[in-house]
Amino acid sequence: MKLIQFQIDDIIKTALNEDINYIDVTTDLLVDDDRISTARFVSKDEGVLCGIDIAMRVFELLDPNVEYNVYLKDGSSVNKGDIIAEITGRTRALLKGERTALNLVQHLSGVASATNKLVKLAEGTNAGIADTRKTLPGLRALQKYAVTVGGGKNHRYNLSDCAMLKDTHIDAYGSLTNAVKVLRENLGHTVKIEVEVGSLDELHEALATGADIIMLDNMSCELMSKAVDITNGRALLEASGNVSEQTLRSIAETGVDIISVGAITHSVKAFDISMKMNKQEE
Amino acid sequence: MKLIQFQIDDIIKTALNEDINYIDVTTDLLVDDDRISTARFVSKDEGVLCGIDIAMRVFELLDPNVEYNVYLKDGSSVNKGDIIAEITGRTRALLKGERTALNLVQHLSGVASATNKLVKLAEGTNAGIADTRKTLPGLRALQKYAVTVGGGKNHRYNLSDCAMLKDTHIDAYGSLTNAVKVLRENLGHTVKIEVEVGSLDELHEALATGADIIMLDNMSCELMSKAVDITNGRALLEASGNVSEQTLRSIAETGVDIISVGAITHSVKAFDISMKMNKQEE
Amino acid sequence: MKLIQFQIDDIIKTALNEDINYIDVTTDLLVDDDRISTARFVSKDEGVLCGIDIAMRVFELLDPNVEYNVYLKDGSSVNKGDIIAEITGRTRALLKGERTALNLVQHLSGVASATNKLVKLAEGTNAGIADTRKTLPGLRALQKYAVTVGGGKNHRYNLSDCAMLKDTHIDAYGSLTNAVKVLRENLGHTVKIEVEVGSLDELHEALATGADIIMLDNMSCELMSKAVDITNGRALLEASGNVSEQTLRSIAETGVDIISVGAITHSVKAFDISMKMNKQEE
Amino acid sequence: MKLIQFQIDDIIKTALNEDINYIDVTTDLLVDDDRISTARFVSKDEGVLCGIDIAMRVFELLDPNVEYNVYLKDGSSVNKGDIIAEITGRTRALLKGERTALNLVQHLSGVASATNKLVKLAEGTNAGIADTRKTLPGLRALQKYAVTVGGGKNHRYNLSDCAMLKDTHIDAYGSLTNAVKVLRENLGHTVKIEVEVGSLDELHEALATGADIIMLDNMSCELMSKAVDITNGRALLEASGNVSEQTLRSIAETGVDIISVGAITHSVKAFDISMKMNKQEE
Amino acid sequence: MKLIQFQIDDIIKTALNEDINYIDVTTDLLVDDDRISTARFVSKDEGVLCGIDIAMRVFELLDPNVEYNVYLKDGSSVNKGDIIAEITGRTRALLKGERTALNLVQHLSGVASATNKLVKLAEGTNAGIADTRKTLPGLRALQKYAVTVGGGKNHRYNLSDCAMLKDTHIDAYGSLTNAVKVLRENLGHTVKIEVEVGSLDELHEALATGADIIMLDNMSCELMSKAVDITNGRALLEASGNVSEQTLRSIAETGVDIISVGAITHSVKAFDISMKMNKQEE
Amino acid sequence: MKLIQFQIDDIIKTALNEDINYIDVTTDLLVDDDRISTARFVSKDEGVLCGIDIAMRVFELLDPNVEYNVYLKDGSSVNKGDIIAEITGRTRALLKGERTALNLVQHLSGVASATNKLVKLAEGTNAGIADTRKTLPGLRALQKYAVTVGGGKNHRYNLSDCAMLKDTHIDAYGSLTNAVKVLRENLGHTVKIEVEVGSLDELHEALATGADIIMLDNMSCELMSKAVDITNGRALLEASGNVSEQTLRSIAETGVDIISVGAITHSVKAFDISMKMNKQEE
Repeated sequence: MKLIQFQIDDIIKTALNEDINYIDVTTDLLVDDDRISTARFVSKDEGVLCGIDIAMRVFELLDPNVEYNVYLKDGSSVNKGDIIAEITGRTRALLKGERTALNLVQHLSGVASATNKLVKLAEGTNAGIADTRKTLPGLRALQKYAVTVGGGKNHRYNLSDCAMLKDTHIDAYGSLTNAVKVLRENLGHTVKIEVEVGSLDELHEALATGADIIMLDNMSCELMSKAVDITNGRALLEASGNVSEQTLRSIAETGVDIISVGAITHSVKAFDISMKMNKQEE
Repeated sequence: MKLIQFQIDDIIKTALNEDINYIDVTTDLLVDDDRISTARFVSKDEGVLCGIDIAMRVFELLDPNVEYNVYLKDGSSVNKGDIIAEITGRTRALLKGERTALNLVQHLSGVASATNKLVKLAEGTNAGIADTRKTLPGLRALQKYAVTVGGGKNHRYNLSDCAMLKDTHIDAYGSLTNAVKVLRENLGHTVKIEVEVGSLDELHEALATGADIIMLDNMSCELMSKAVDITNGRALLEASGNVSEQTLRSIAETGVDIISVGAITHSVKAFDISMKMNKQEE
Repeated sequence: MKLIQFQIDDIIKTALNEDINYIDVTTDLLVDDDRISTARFVSKDEGVLCGIDIAMRVFELLDPNVEYNVYLKDGSSVNKGDIIAEITGRTRALLKGERTALNLVQHLSGVASATNKLVKLAEGTNAGIADTRKTLPGLRALQKYAVTVGGGKNHRYNLSDCAMLKDTHIDAYGSLTNAVKVLRENLGHTVKIEVEVGSLDELHEALATGADIIMLDNMSCELMSKAVDITNGRALLEASGNVSEQTLRSIAETGVDIISVGAITHSVKAFDISMKMNKQEE
Repeated sequence: MKLIQFQIDDIIKTALNEDINYIDVTTDLLVDDDRISTARFVSKDEGVLCGIDIAMRVFELLDPNVEYNVYLKDGSSVNKGDIIAEITGRTRALLKGERTALNLVQHLSGVASATNKLVKLAEGTNAGIADTRKTLPGLRALQKYAVTVGGGKNHRYNLSDCAMLKDTHIDAYGSLTNAVKVLRENLGHTVKIEVEVGSLDELHEALATGADIIMLDNMSCELMSKAVDITNGRALLEASGNVSEQTLRSIAETGVDIISVGAITHSVKAFDISMKMNKQEE
Repeated sequence: MKLIQFQIDDIIKTALNEDINYIDVTTDLLVDDDRISTARFVSKDEGVLCGIDIAMRVFELLDPNVEYNVYLKDGSSVNKGDIIAEITGRTRALLKGERTALNLVQHLSGVASATNKLVKLAEGTNAGIADTRKTLPGLRALQKYAVTVGGGKNHRYNLSDCAMLKDTHIDAYGSLTNAVKVLRENLGHTVKIEVEVGSLDELHEALATGADIIMLDNMSCELMSKAVDITNGRALLEASGNVSEQTLRSIAETGVDIISVGAITHSVKAFDISMKMNKQEE
Repeated sequence: MKLIQFQIDDIIKTALNEDINYIDVTTDLLVDDDRISTARFVSKDEGVLCGIDIAMRVFELLDPNVEYNVYLKDGSSVNKGDIIAEITGRTRALLKGERTALNLVQHLSGVASATNKLVKLAEGTNAGIADTRKTLPGLRALQKYAVTVGGGKNHRYNLSDCAMLKDTHIDAYGSLTNAVKVLRENLGHTVKIEVEVGSLDELHEALATGADIIMLDNMSCELMSKAVDITNGRALLEASGNVSEQTLRSIAETGVDIISVGAITHSVKAFDISMKMNKQEE
């Protein structure tokens, strides 16, 4: 996996601390410590899987001796009834970790699946689907990872790694042209400059500054088509605003390079996956 | 607010660390450190507001001298166009905190609004709406708080504070009756026992054990009505499974005490709120 | 063990950081890194053992290759001279971890033994021995675990998982009856309500509210006996105040369900255990 | 206070997190957020007070607007009925912080009082009372502070700041003389060397090495008197083992410089202090 | 300041924890808690100041009531004898924080001054001076900030925010051209691509891929001049390797855009600043 | 190694978090997860190696299955071209950890080498080389360890473990003699007292107090020689100030016991070590 294991572990531990506090009063009183069980993760939905290794890791942090097989990897298309993974270990660990593991894999598969639906809708056009900084607190790395698993691309990760000029910044400097000039002179050379524009006039000004990326903010598809023609490859064009499953295809067909969508991370529907425990063997 | 300030601060700091890394390359290069602005938080949706104090706190952690007025408190019904709060402080702090503040208040208002919609659907019946442990990693306290702001109730917070018997636990002890007996003898006296049942036979057995709460798992409304009659107040009845805006009213009308719903925390739609910066005064 | 390994590890690391700072000037200068020793943990006291796995874990965090045998598990009765465990590993790790390991196992065995003494005094009566929230900062999970190892039961873990009405709360609501009514309407359904009463009049009022648990605060045994008769199983009765080894039996014989005791966690006498190093083999 | 505020805050936050989890279900549902109360801290025991500023800080972390007067400072002799401090602030904060504040001040006053009892027993002799590394995990700084408040002295804080040779170290080097020589050549010049001896022969050898401190391990008072004569000021002599309120005076009268006692930190009896809430003013 | 206060605070607390452990045995025993002193920060070197606000913050964390005037801000040129700042507060806080404050401001001023020396050497040429990822563990944000204070620019902050192809990456994909193509298709659109080249042949290939930045790795000035001609503005050119005060001017005169230098962060000479305490007023 | 593994791990994780953020956009997109490489650490400088185990640990935290051989241990003299270690593991882990591993081993070898140079210059004299508290924030333990690896000795670690009287402390007590007396009466018996003197008069007074260590502050060699004669072994003498490679030998020849040097930790030149990746085997 691309993510750093110890960073994931910290998120899992936070989640387990929330969910367990100190003991599982039911499990610890009823299930012997040396009882072993096997559980299967089964899909009850259709979409793109994400987070199954993280789910397995939840159990490993509770019982280093668990053994598991992951049958479907992150990025796989899954259908109802598909067996995703199977894990064997102490029953106590399986029961204590169940909710946390499911919360993680269901959320991340939700992100990946929502992303992938949009990616498919844009297929054959020039447009890639990108996420935004509208992520859930503490979960940005996981959500951004899930977006790429769903076939999307990551917009800037944070305020340090790409400059983006909005109205407020421009107000502070009198004009877009001046603002970009100041940035150019002071920014690190590895940082791109993105400018938000709301009209073709602003687009012309932005292009003249040599901005790397231009965000077309809440423009109609008609206007965006014109913007694509005007730009003619001189900058990357990013469409933003009013993106839904209904509107995406027409936006993509305007010829923009990137369509950024907040909903794939800020309004995620959990992807239904269940964990089924076998009868335990003594 | 009921939540502990320093716990909230830790979540905000995590979110700001993710979102800023170390500087805001755009703002720090373009906006003078002593420039002051005012921003308004405006609703662009209808529902129940939650998290506005937390949003204000984001800015306070970036600039201890911000001043703000909160016009609509957590729990208020809000409509499109309502001005929720107004804040004045360093422009840099307002711009750096904007995304984190919005991510928090939009998510929590989403939870509160979704909860409230269900609460209203159940109005006039006996049924309360409760959350579950299907929360997002790291956000349980905030989400559980938002559920109460929306008029819902909190189910158990973690695996330590209420016993809940599921199949696996019962398997391990031969019978439901035995399992509850063992629990009763060993559990702390402040901990309630909830038992999951899937049939009326199991309900009868559960009632005989004196369980405090009985969860009716994925039962039809017809069966749940019978369960209510049989139980006759001897235990709290909780309906679980297949709960949606469509089915909720009929479930509530069976007479169950509690309907628990995962979606209000695991499948949250962000509530649209915008932050509008005034032109800055020099 | 019931406790979560990574939570224990955090406590151990905190303790080792305090105790070692960065090196052990004596050991690191005098003992070769590859020297191996064996040490035995030997009881020098009588009581109930608790924390031996945690003590072993201290060494494992300093040297992942230690090997150990635990001869007496948590919950065992131990006598002077009993060999509890034997561990072999790098001499440096054994010497560096010794104090931290002993501090932990001696304190937890102290809690378990003190609890067990009271549990035995109550044997044959209806009364269980429970802990309180009078625990030492940072050690609640460990202490509550040790109480159960000694045969006691855990009272509420924190302010979130059981409601307990004291004078101040009642003052705020005019009457006990009103206060419980408000709680009942707003509390989550998994949370029990406990009410503190100081007289039989208050007991009658508390019983009428349907409170789950009633705490008899500093009552004489005579009064508690009457309370037991009056209550007649309608609520759990908890005795609190003036509990000592001298008074416990008479309190237990009043028929109360639970006797809660702060001293088993707030006034713990360390249980004497020593770690004896064998002559090292080269 | 000598302790660093932000270090204390971390310990308090850990304790509050344990004790509150996320809300106080009783207080948050029954007490209005803007209700104000006053509480008094009253001694119910006799001894030396320690930790009252820390107790006040607990409330300040929950409500930055609390106001308080501390009438008796750390180190004061207190008697039953003495009013130690008075605090006014949000009722919710007072109720939420009560247990944590009391747990801290009761434990630390317990340490200071136990220490002070021994200090008084040694009055008029040459002997100071010192603590050990037998402290409770996570509480070393607080406990060591309380020891000084009670009139005692701090032994080494950790394994880095003083060398102490025990049997095992000496075994590793063939002889005490060799071991001290190796240490002397490699240790930092600010670090003292303490040697543990069990007989007068060993004492002679230790003195010859020029050790700074010699620990007389479990020696009879008679032997210790001889050790004092032999040593004649060439090294500091520390008595260790079999120290109790009964034996302390005779040990002190042997002329040793320091008597170190584990019990003042590992077997602490909580010092009884209560927090009494006034009737709230509306 | 551009840096986030609570991030700075965490670094300061780490440093103070290292430096103080729990008390300052000298100061806490000799200086009364209410004694007040004034101290001046005086330059004993020539260069560019950086970190003075951070130094003041050290004391503020130890005593929230300190008052200070900063006479010379970050970025100021300072000479021997210049008074940089004056601070008044508890003597204990001044003494406890002195070393940590000096360690920080001396190191950061060292970074800024070393950077500035190179910036001045390149004055009048096209070349900017940039840092690298060769920073000291835990100090990257501070060091990168100091580089900008010295007039330098920040290279990529981390491995996420700019792609940089080195031999190993290219090996894995057969050719530079292929590797850039794969990156282009999968990278987020805000991320620039930098390619390391060692010869003019590689430069030609890199230019053909449309890479944003090309690093000329350890090239002679002659070769770099040719590279500048060939490139002719089609990509940013970064010189790397063999950069010293001696060679910098000639490298800058080749016409490259950026010269990146590890030494300004990995081999920093502390900038001498002293803190002089006035005689205290009673 | 003498350092505690989990303490090192925390520093490494901090460094990796800084350097990677969440993914390595270059490596993760171009290099397959199961690709394996071998890398060699090669010295490009002459001096004393330090931190090679820590460098290896960086990779182990990213890929627990790496295998490595360390050919030259900490403390070895290394020359240009020496192969220090060889490591095989996932290419991704090697590339992601490279910068962090090098930053650590280069800095620590820089400290060890600078120390060792001074140690050699003092060879044959009585003087040891000691570090100071002028360390880089967050890196004290590592730097102090590197000093010992280079043959130096550690001065006090923090303000808790040795008393050091400076002007300010003495001012507060009227006279050096009084100040030492107060300290002696209140300090723990394991703590040495060091006094800073600037003249022979002060030296005489300091000797009379029985101070353990006397720091000769910025004295000429001539004065120091006299100080050595006067002291005649009654206290350890530490030279401080104006220490450089040029002056060290003459200072050492005055007969002082210790020469403390800030530059070996506050002005470290990175020691050049490179990591060379082999062509990967498929």
